[in-house]
Amino acid sequence: MYNKLSGWDDTIAAIATPPGIGAIGVLRLSGDQSFEIVQKLFPSKKLKDQPANTLHVGFLKEGETVLDEVVISLFKKPSSYTGEDVIEISCHGSPFVQQQVLGALIRNGARLAKAGEFTQRAFLNKKLDLAQAEAVGDLIASNTKASQNAALKNMRGGFSNVLKDLREELIKFSSLIELELDFSEEDVEFADRHQFSLLIDKISRTVQQLLESFKLGNVIKNGVSVAIVGKPNAGKSTLLNTLLNENRAIVSEIAGTTRDTIEETININGILFRLIDTAGIREHSQDIIENMGVVKSKEKIRQADIVLYLFDINEMSKDELKRTVNELLTQKTNLILVANKADLFNKEVHKYLANEIFISAQQQTGIEELKNTLFAMAGGEGINYENVVVTNARHYSALSEVAKSLNEIKVAMANNISGDLLSIDINRCLHYLGEITGEITNEDRLDYIFSKFCIGK
Amino acid sequence: MYNKLSGWDDTIAAIATPPGIGAIGVLRLSGDQSFEIVQKLFPSKKLKDQPANTLHVGFLKEGETVLDEVVISLFKKPSSYTGEDVIEISCHGSPFVQQQVLGALIRNGARLAKAGEFTQRAFLNKKLDLAQAEAVGDLIASNTKASQNAALKNMRGGFSNVLKDLREELIKFSSLIELELDFSEEDVEFADRHQFSLLIDKISRTVQQLLESFKLGNVIKNGVSVAIVGKPNAGKSTLLNTLLNENRAIVSEIAGTTRDTIEETININGILFRLIDTAGIREHSQDIIENMGVVKSKEKIRQADIVLYLFDINEMSKDELKRTVNELLTQKTNLILVANKADLFNKEVHKYLANEIFISAQQQTGIEELKNTLFAMAGGEGINYENVVVTNARHYSALSEVAKSLNEIKVAMANNISGDLLSIDINRCLHYLGEITGEITNEDRLDYIFSKFCIGK
Repeated sequence: MYNKLSGWDDTIAAIATPPGIGAIGVLRLSGDQSFEIVQKLFPSKKLKDQPANTLHVGFLKEGETVLDEVVISLFKKPSSYTGEDVIEISCHGSPFVQQQVLGALIRNGARLAKAGEFTQRAFLNKKLDLAQAEAVGDLIASNTKASQNAALKNMRGGFSNVLKDLREELIKFSSLIELELDFSEEDVEFADRHQFSLLIDKISRTVQQLLESFKLGNVIKNGVSVAIVGKPNAGKSTLLNTLLNENRAIVSEIAGTTRDTIEETININGILFRLIDTAGIREHSQDIIENMGVVKSKEKIRQADIVLYLFDINEMSKDELKRTVNELLTQKTNLILVANKADLFNKEVHKYLANEIFISAQQQTGIEELKNTLFAMAGGEGINYENVVVTNARHYSALSEVAKSLNEIKVAMANNISGDLLSIDINRCLHYLGEITGEITNEDRLDYIFSKFCIGK
Repeated sequence: MYNKLSGWDDTIAAIATPPGIGAIGVLRLSGDQSFEIVQKLFPSKKLKDQPANTLHVGFLKEGETVLDEVVISLFKKPSSYTGEDVIEISCHGSPFVQQQVLGALIRNGARLAKAGEFTQRAFLNKKLDLAQAEAVGDLIASNTKASQNAALKNMRGGFSNVLKDLREELIKFSSLIELELDFSEEDVEFADRHQFSLLIDKISRTVQQLLESFKLGNVIKNGVSVAIVGKPNAGKSTLLNTLLNENRAIVSEIAGTTRDTIEETININGILFRLIDTAGIREHSQDIIENMGVVKSKEKIRQADIVLYLFDINEMSKDELKRTVNELLTQKTNLILVANKADLFNKEVHKYLANEIFISAQQQTGIEELKNTLFAMAGGEGINYENVVVTNARHYSALSEVAKSLNEIKVAMANNISGDLLSIDINRCLHYLGEITGEITNEDRLDYIFSKFCIGK
C-alpha cells in the first residue's frame, strides 16, 4: 500500500521553527538525497563521510554567494525521526535568511514539504504508529500541563499499546475461527467459545473505559468554557480580573499564548478555563433591558460548558435568586452560584440554596474555593497522569465503532451464530481497532490527518 | 577588564527560536554548568562522556515528570559559539512545552539569559570582535539580499579587518613616537615623519570612503521611505497596488514579514522601499481641502527619503504642474514626477519638465522604468557586494571621530608639533578605531549594544 503514496521517495525540506525573528531558525530535510543536496551548498566538509548524529559548523554557499554561517545536524537512516536520511540546518533567525536557504535547497533538488509530511514519513517508515504520530501534533498544540502530559503519554505509545494487546488477542481467536471454517464439514471448534466470550468482555470493558475517558480527554485537550453571567453590578469584571490577575504570571510566562489572541483564559491545576464575560455582550448590544441580562445571554449559556452565576448578596432577594436559578437550570445543569460582596454582608450568613460559594472579588476571599469548584465540575479530579486518556475525536469515533461491533459479537454468540458470520463481526472490530493505530488505513485519510500538522513537522 | 563584568561566570539559558507554534523549538545554554544542569534532566546518557559536536535523542525528565522527547546538541569550550560549554535542546514546538523545559533548566541552576548575552559572551571570549557581533544582530534583522549580504560580510570580519590593519600600522608609528619621548633629551626621530604622513593620508582616504558608504549602508539596512503624493484621482492606490502586486510573490515568500506589520514595502533589486500613501492621511483628516493635498502632506514629505509625485496627465495643466513641482522642490530635492494614465493620453506626448516618467498604473506600463528610477535615486547602483559598507550608526559616529582626529594629526604635523602632543592625537584616533571593533570599550556601552539583540542570541 505504501508505495502507492505519490512522491514520498523524493527529498523534502521545510522551515521547522515558528515564523518570525528569533536568535536561530532551523530548516529540515528528509529523504535519500538530503546529503547530496546540502553537500552542494556546504563546501567545507564531505558530509557523507561524517558519522551520524554529528554537528558541523560552516558557511552555506550557493555558487559564490554566501547564504549564512550555519550548524548542520546529520542523522542517517534508519536512526532518524523520519527513518530516512535527515539533515537539520540551524541558521540565523532572520525570516529572510531562512527563505534564502530554503530557496537554495529547493533549487538544488529538494521539494517543499507538505504540512505534517515529516511525521507522515515517520509513520510510513514505522517509526511511530498513527496514534503516536497524532500525539506529536497534540504535543505541539499543548498549552497546559494536562494536555502536554496526555500527548506525551500517547506519543510514547501508552494508548497504542493498550489497543495493540487487545487486537493481538482478538486476531488469535479470529484465526482459530477462520481455521474452523476450513474444516466446516467436520463441525470442529478450535476456538474455545467460553474463552472467547471472556476476551470479548475484557475488550468491551477496556473500550468502555477509554470511551468514558474522552469527556475528560476533551477537557484536557480543548479546555472548558465558562460563561460568567449576572446583573451589571454583580461584580463580574472584578471577578474576572481577580481570576486573571492571580494567573497573570502563568499566562505571561507562555510566549505566544497571550490573552489577546483567544478568550481570557486561566489555568487551574493544568486545565485551561476560557472565561466568557457575558456582560460585554450585553453592554454593546442596542436593544437591551439591563434586568433581562440573564435571558439575553442564553446563547452564550447554551454554548458554555459551565455557567457561573454571580450575584451581589446584598442586593439579591431569596425569591429573585430562586427564580433566576430555576431559569438557568433549564438551560444548563453545570451551574455554579457565586455570592459576591460577601465581605459587606453583615447579617448572619444563611445559604439561600445550600450550594453557593461566598466570595469577595474585591477582597479576594473565597477565590480558591471557586477555583476548586470549577476544577471539580470540569472533572479535573479524574485526571490521573498514570491513566491513558482518549483526547482525539477520530479515536473516539473508531472506538465507538469497536464498541458497536463488540456488542454485535456478543449478540451473535448468544444466538450461537455460525463461525463464518462471527468472523465478519470480528473482522469489523479488528478493522476499527487497527484504524486507530494505523494498521488499517487509506491514503486520503492519512493525508487528511497529517494536513492538520504544521509545516516542518 | 572582563572579569569586572558581573554574572558572566554563571550558566545562562533561553529559548532561541521565535515565539509561537512550530514543528520544533530550540533552547540554548551556555556556561560551565551547562552539562551538569542538562544531565539532571537527561537520564539516558552520561553527557560529559560524549564527544563534542554530537547529537543525542532522549527524554527530558524533571523527577518523574516527562517534559518532552528531545534532541540534544553538545558543543564543548572553546569550540562553541560563545567559547563556553554550550548545549542546545531541540524540543517539540509548543510554547508551553518550551516554557516547561526552560523552567526546569532555571530550577536546576541556569539563569535566564539577557538579550544578546550569548553573543556578548562570544565577544568577551574573543570569538568575535564587536563589529562582527553587531553584524550577527544585523543578519538576524536582515530582510533583503543587500542587508543580508552586508551583515554577512561584516560578520565574517570584512569591516573589522580593514580597520584592524589600519590600526596596527598606526600603533606601530605611535610606539615609535612614544619611544622618541623616552629619548627626548637627545632629539632623535625614530618615526619617519614622511612615512607617517603617507600613512595618515592612507587612513584618511579609507575612513572617508567608509564614511561615504554609510549613506548607502543606511539604505541597505533600513530601506528607503517613499511618500506617494498627488491629487485624489491621480491613481495613487492603483499605482501602489501595481507595485505591490508585482512584488507579492517576494513579499509573501518571507514568513513573518507581512505587509500588515510595517508599512507597505517592495523589494527592488535587494533594497527595501517603504511606500507611504499620503492619500490615506488626507482622507481621514477633518479640515481638508482636496486641492491643497500637496501642502497637507508636508510632514510626510519632510520625513520621506524620496517623494513620488503622481499626476493624471490628462487632467494636469503645464502651469499647475510647474507650480506644484516648484513647491515640492522647496521641501525635498529627491523628487520623482510620474505621469499616470499615459495610455489615455492621445495628444502627441510632450514632456512637461523633461524628467517625468510616463506610466499607466492600470495597464502596468512604465512600471519598470519607475522602479529603476527609484533604485537609482536610492543609490542602489552603488551596491557592490565586494565592498565593505558601514551600516551601523555607532560605527559611523566613531569613524567621524577618527576622521576628526586624523585632521588634528595633519594640522599638528604641518605645524611641526612635538612628539608628546602628537602622541595624544594619535591615541585619540586609536581609541575611536578600537571602539568599533571592541578593543576599547566599557561595560555600560557593551550592555547597551547587546541589549538590542533578541533573547537567545
